[in-house]
Amino acid sequence: QRKHRIAVIPGDGIGKETTPEGLRVLDAAARRFGFELELTHYDWSCETYAQTGKMMPDDGMDRLKDSDSIFLGAVGWPGVPDHVSLWGLLIPIRRQFDQYVNLRPCKLLPGSKTPLANRGPEDIDFYVVRENTEGEYSSIGGRMFPGTDREFVSQQTVMTRIGCDRVIKYAFELAMTRKRKKVTSATKSNGITFTMPYWDERFAEMAKNYPGVTTDQFHIDILCAHFVQHPDWFDVVVGSNLFGDILSDLGPAVAGSIGIAASANINPEKTFPSMFEPVHGSAPDIAGKWIANPIGQIWSGAMMLEHLGEKEAADCIVATIERLLAEGGPRTRDMGGQAGTVDVGKAIAEAV
Amino acid sequence: QRKHRIAVIPGDGIGKETTPEGLRVLDAAARRFGFELELTHYDWSCETYAQTGKMMPDDGMDRLKDSDSIFLGAVGWPGVPDHVSLWGLLIPIRRQFDQYVNLRPCKLLPGSKTPLANRGPEDIDFYVVRENTEGEYSSIGGRMFPGTDREFVSQQTVMTRIGCDRVIKYAFELAMTRKRKKVTSATKSNGITFTMPYWDERFAEMAKNYPGVTTDQFHIDILCAHFVQHPDWFDVVVGSNLFGDILSDLGPAVAGSIGIAASANINPEKTFPSMFEPVHGSAPDIAGKWIANPIGQIWSGAMMLEHLGEKEAADCIVATIERLLAEGGPRTRDMGGQAGTVDVGKAIAEAV
Ligand SMILES: CC(C)[C@H](C(=O)O)[C@@H](O)C(=O)O
Ligand SMILES: CC(C)[C@H](C(=O)O)[C@@H](O)C(=O)O
Repeated sequence: QRKHRIAVIPGDGIGKETTPEGLRVLDAAARRFGFELELTHYDWSCETYAQTGKMMPDDGMDRLKDSDSIFLGAVGWPGVPDHVSLWGLLIPIRRQFDQYVNLRPCKLLPGSKTPLANRGPEDIDFYVVRENTEGEYSSIGGRMFPGTDREFVSQQTVMTRIGCDRVIKYAFELAMTRKRKKVTSATKSNGITFTMPYWDERFAEMAKNYPGVTTDQFHIDILCAHFVQHPDWFDVVVGSNLFGDILSDLGPAVAGSIGIAASANINPEKTFPSMFEPVHGSAPDIAGKWIANPIGQIWSGAMMLEHLGEKEAADCIVATIERLLAEGGPRTRDMGGQAGTVDVGKAIAEAV
Repeated sequence: QRKHRIAVIPGDGIGKETTPEGLRVLDAAARRFGFELELTHYDWSCETYAQTGKMMPDDGMDRLKDSDSIFLGAVGWPGVPDHVSLWGLLIPIRRQFDQYVNLRPCKLLPGSKTPLANRGPEDIDFYVVRENTEGEYSSIGGRMFPGTDREFVSQQTVMTRIGCDRVIKYAFELAMTRKRKKVTSATKSNGITFTMPYWDERFAEMAKNYPGVTTDQFHIDILCAHFVQHPDWFDVVVGSNLFGDILSDLGPAVAGSIGIAASANINPEKTFPSMFEPVHGSAPDIAGKWIANPIGQIWSGAMMLEHLGEKEAADCIVATIERLLAEGGPRTRDMGGQAGTVDVGKAIAEAV
């Protein structure tokens, strides 16, 4: 029997509530499709930070390394600064495991409420492919003349040929598997005149290898506007770390699914484990009430199965989510229902 | 009689068509409210670049310097690269005249079509205040190891204390003049960890001087999502050069007014002239057809009058635009009508 080793990190807040539901559905899929999941749980979180002074133990990365995938809930809690919680757990995993693709589906699911007028599921169905290791999220920068009128800070955006090419290639390969076969590049080469023209150059170069793929590019300002005005234009959208970050929140917002969006941090070569997490955060305001929507977590689980080669199981989970929503199955408050986190998880698991 | 000296640069494409309508309305306002406009026309554009090899003559900035304001149409034309057209005209004016505030109203005008469901004029009425001289649009950067696998580019974002403080102050002062008195800061300090935490610091510092102003801040990714989901949350939004650029396209897009949005590049101390331009570009696809919507240009003219101290005239122009739209006055194709550029300009000028 096929076996996959999964490191499970529920993390903080509602992550602790949605992760079990994600696992419930994964377990159902494993039984139905005949594979095994070997789970190892890690309680790394802001809570353990409060006790130990560390988000993860010193050998944390080593322990994760042997898993096939990492299944993450959410990280972050009020009182713990981002440079501790995020830069002590989330960002090092993305970077040290070279998860250079952050992949986020933007899809209008049946029954989910888009803020846009007159848009249906056929209008919004695209992927954002985000560079996930370099670019604007850089570790080179600093401050000079602190406390004086000349004080300034600077930070370098860094884009490497290797870094650009591999993520752009991923976007083209993804487009090849889709019906419309179109890749849109997010740029800002009219204003940011050293890094972004280089991005454009690498994009144009890669496009030559894929004559069957249609391409276009927009500056990030007007691209954000187009996401709202013409979401139907997009199939696969590729962007730098920052632009991808922005577009992969805006895309789900436009689709009315920001509370339920899924994401994958992928190392396509499988040299290191990839990581799967919902787009939403730890949501301190509703944590502990067991009303959080587990769909983002469950959907992320489906992306994990796809990465692990269990495509049939992955498709089944996504189809089940869509079917239950369309049929008026149980839904949490954010989707206008009354169900709790566990109700929704159970309904999906049973249907799978 | 009060006199204002205006440098007029129609620029390229539809800029040549909308600028005369802007001037027509300004002229009507001058007669009604009793001031004089002394106009100097400059034909600087991509066309003159084709003839002379320069977007503006060597003494261009000197010539503009003595005007009270600059009234710009649009810059850019296919075949002329951005680093020539934009960096040869638009960006140097913004920067050398220290127009450090880029101000853009985001307003749902009556009768304009927002892509959002169930939103009316009372829901969308805020300003984006964008830093306009530093930040991500920097002139420090370069490329190493060209043509090899180690090739990389880098570009420094630079934020100075002076640069942050003055634009953030402007946002607070603007909020003080408004009913809701609220300033929202756009940040990304969880990912961009040298420059953005400094921005947050300066924002928090400035807020102390304005106890009567409510503040909040969001990371740019979720802020973009909120623009779509909750445009009614915002009153004044302040951001860096790049974040302000993104938000000031997204805001008008959400309000359904991206084709008619206005903008002001302001040097608040009036050491140098300020510049007023519509948000739309030169629109090569419809240039020459005289069907472009002149409202963005006319609205920019109103912002110019306000800057010149003619507040009554400015308010009158904006109110007239809103009234004509509400009453079903002539409108161009983008707003579902049949009128030409000149028809709309004339209607507004007459009503003023
Ligand atoms: C043309 C471009 C350089 C410019 C900018 O990004 O500043 C434009 O998008 C704007 O917002 O005025
Ligand atoms: C928490 C933050 C650093 C992170 C990012 O910007 O990468 C988040 O917004 C995301 O998109 O996963």
